[in-house]
Amino acid sequence: MRVLILGGDGYLGWPTALRFSAKGHEVAVVDNFARRRWHREQGTDSLTPILPLEERIAAWSGSAGRDIRSFEGAVEDGPFLDGVVSEVRPEAIVHYGEQPSAPFSMMSRERAVETQQTNVIGTLNLLFSIRDHVPACHLVKLGTMGEYGTPNIDIEEGFIEVHHKGRSDTLPFPKLPGSLYHCSKVHDSTNIHFASRVWGLRATDLNQGVVYGVETDETAGDERLFTRFDYDEIFGTVLNRFCVQAVIGHPLTVYGAGGQTRGFLNIRDTLRCVELAVESPADEGEFRVFNQFTEQFSVGELAELVDGAARQLGYDPQVRHLENPRVELEQHYYNATHTKLLDLGLEPSLLGEELVTSMLHLIERYKDRVVKRAIDPRTKWNPAGGRGFLGPRHGQSELAPRG
Amino acid sequence: MRVLILGGDGYLGWPTALRFSAKGHEVAVVDNFARRRWHREQGTDSLTPILPLEERIAAWSGSAGRDIRSFEGAVEDGPFLDGVVSEVRPEAIVHYGEQPSAPFSMMSRERAVETQQTNVIGTLNLLFSIRDHVPACHLVKLGTMGEYGTPNIDIEEGFIEVHHKGRSDTLPFPKLPGSLYHCSKVHDSTNIHFASRVWGLRATDLNQGVVYGVETDETAGDERLFTRFDYDEIFGTVLNRFCVQAVIGHPLTVYGAGGQTRGFLNIRDTLRCVELAVESPADEGEFRVFNQFTEQFSVGELAELVDGAARQLGYDPQVRHLENPRVELEQHYYNATHTKLLDLGLEPSLLGEELVTSMLHLIERYKDRVVKRAIDPRTKWNPAGGRGFLGPRHGQSELAPRG
Repeated sequence: MRVLILGGDGYLGWPTALRFSAKGHEVAVVDNFARRRWHREQGTDSLTPILPLEERIAAWSGSAGRDIRSFEGAVEDGPFLDGVVSEVRPEAIVHYGEQPSAPFSMMSRERAVETQQTNVIGTLNLLFSIRDHVPACHLVKLGTMGEYGTPNIDIEEGFIEVHHKGRSDTLPFPKLPGSLYHCSKVHDSTNIHFASRVWGLRATDLNQGVVYGVETDETAGDERLFTRFDYDEIFGTVLNRFCVQAVIGHPLTVYGAGGQTRGFLNIRDTLRCVELAVESPADEGEFRVFNQFTEQFSVGELAELVDGAARQLGYDPQVRHLENPRVELEQHYYNATHTKLLDLGLEPSLLGEELVTSMLHLIERYKDRVVKRAIDPRTKWNPAGGRGFLGPRHGQSELAPRG
Repeated sequence: MRVLILGGDGYLGWPTALRFSAKGHEVAVVDNFARRRWHREQGTDSLTPILPLEERIAAWSGSAGRDIRSFEGAVEDGPFLDGVVSEVRPEAIVHYGEQPSAPFSMMSRERAVETQQTNVIGTLNLLFSIRDHVPACHLVKLGTMGEYGTPNIDIEEGFIEVHHKGRSDTLPFPKLPGSLYHCSKVHDSTNIHFASRVWGLRATDLNQGVVYGVETDETAGDERLFTRFDYDEIFGTVLNRFCVQAVIGHPLTVYGAGGQTRGFLNIRDTLRCVELAVESPADEGEFRVFNQFTEQFSVGELAELVDGAARQLGYDPQVRHLENPRVELEQHYYNATHTKLLDLGLEPSLLGEELVTSMLHLIERYKDRVVKRAIDPRTKWNPAGGRGFLGPRHGQSELAPRG
């Protein structure tokens, strides 16, 4: 198949490109290197040293004997994207090409606008490119479980049957996004659903949980092929960040009470899920939503897990509860359905001490690259202070104190 | 009160400014005249001759003895908006400053991007301006009933209590927007709800039905104060368009079967609803949604009503069913709650022959200004043809034929 990967230089985009290439697909990637630029602007970097895209591609070509085409440009540049799509004529497009950080979107008005501009206008452009150039192409779009927030009912996969005043309908699952980044992903879902209903596009929205891990089958053992690994307050996700903290002797920073529960998955499972979605495309006019995670954990449970594995290796981590910089519930109901990818054949790689141990070993090799000042959270969801205005009235299952 | 009206040169924004000014409030308006520019680009214009904003304001000052301040600029220009908000220090902001047309958003990729850019980034900027400069200010935002689409259950006012697997929660009402313009309004609602939950902003989202009529208490009898009146395929709404068609001897253009049912209201009621919302502000952290319409009609019923009233005046209108340029259900369940504004004291001006007759009289005076070639619909929702991929599966209560 011809597969086009948007954001193909990123944490997930790059190993996804290698996976499809390894399987013999014809792979092209698009990236504008915004993630590298944002890191330079913050004075941070990937823990793992990563080569420039062209050098990565050359290394892959040398070791695997397979070519990957690359295009430098922005998804939010419509004419550029049209050119790429009409040249590549992909049968599947995997869209990772967005600003992926919640804290980044909450830093300032400018960062919020940049996030929604990049993500919403980018995806909107993409929908037109598909409609006008490759209408049968299957769009596999990376969404996030954070679109749903923490409602007081079970979370379903994209749609829910609502019974109301003696009638019923299957409708989009109501969303309570937790940052302006998460809002942008909700906007994307709304636009893509519209394009499916009105233009007949085929789309799969992968509402992904929090990804952890660094190595995949294709990158393990060859440093030139490593993907990036972020641990800073802006781009680092919680488990990856805890592992770095344990290795460098920084306290594990639990935000607030630590009861925040989310879905998680191994980076290897991300690749497998995307593969499964591409191999079984959505029908014409179908907008599928898969909840892409394998296990639920609370932040406190992850801190304990990392603490235990690190102690086995002789580290002496401390767990520190910080004032929560986010506005979110710290104790809440959480139960999210995630059966559709299992039905397609996903065999989850579950999280255990062994995986954490292997991450700690890898981090140990690069620990001198850590920028320590970039770890503690400085970006506040509500700069005026306070825990926001959550409550049962608007679908928040714990009533947070006001003000 | 100090009231800032965004889009204060528009169909609703201008008479709203006069209303608040007449009531003795301190009124400032913002506009970038995008609506006038879009009309120039299409070679169309308002049926009613309208003065430039500064001349309208001078006429009002002369006749009413009240001043209105004006600022020329775009809501999507963050620094400009910050300057206006920090100078005016409004206690209420009424936000009409968006691209308001569904067909406009469906014309091309460029127009779709312009719509979502203008509306979503504009409102996002506004939320930051309020947060950072006037956090107690009440945002009254014009949304649309079209955000809900036509689900097979009763439409509630913004939120719905969902019972699911033995649990329940009150959650945002699921949305099925019918155009990329309607999608942009859904995005706005998501962003505003977020800002209320996280920053404690006070907001009222007025999900307005289709507005008809032209005269209000403040504009009637003084042509210099008239608001614009659009009848073209892009900016003209259905009842206004039918009235113009009846007067100029153009068939009344019913799209498809004409069973499409929507909520409608008189422009006088729009002003009253906005006034009621401003006079009873939302609480800190509250995101209220009011469904702002007074009656439901099908398109076919409106054609009959205009046909009857026009015949009384000696016109001889024809009703013509055109192939529907939109992808929408033409027969569907529709029952939308709209009690919150009635509870605040709204006394609806219901639609009848008398109102239609007065509109026909007014249109007769300006009929030579009609650009006839701009009336028939040319903008297709799905340029590839076909009626889209609606169906009960995704909350559409009639199964439209595919393809």
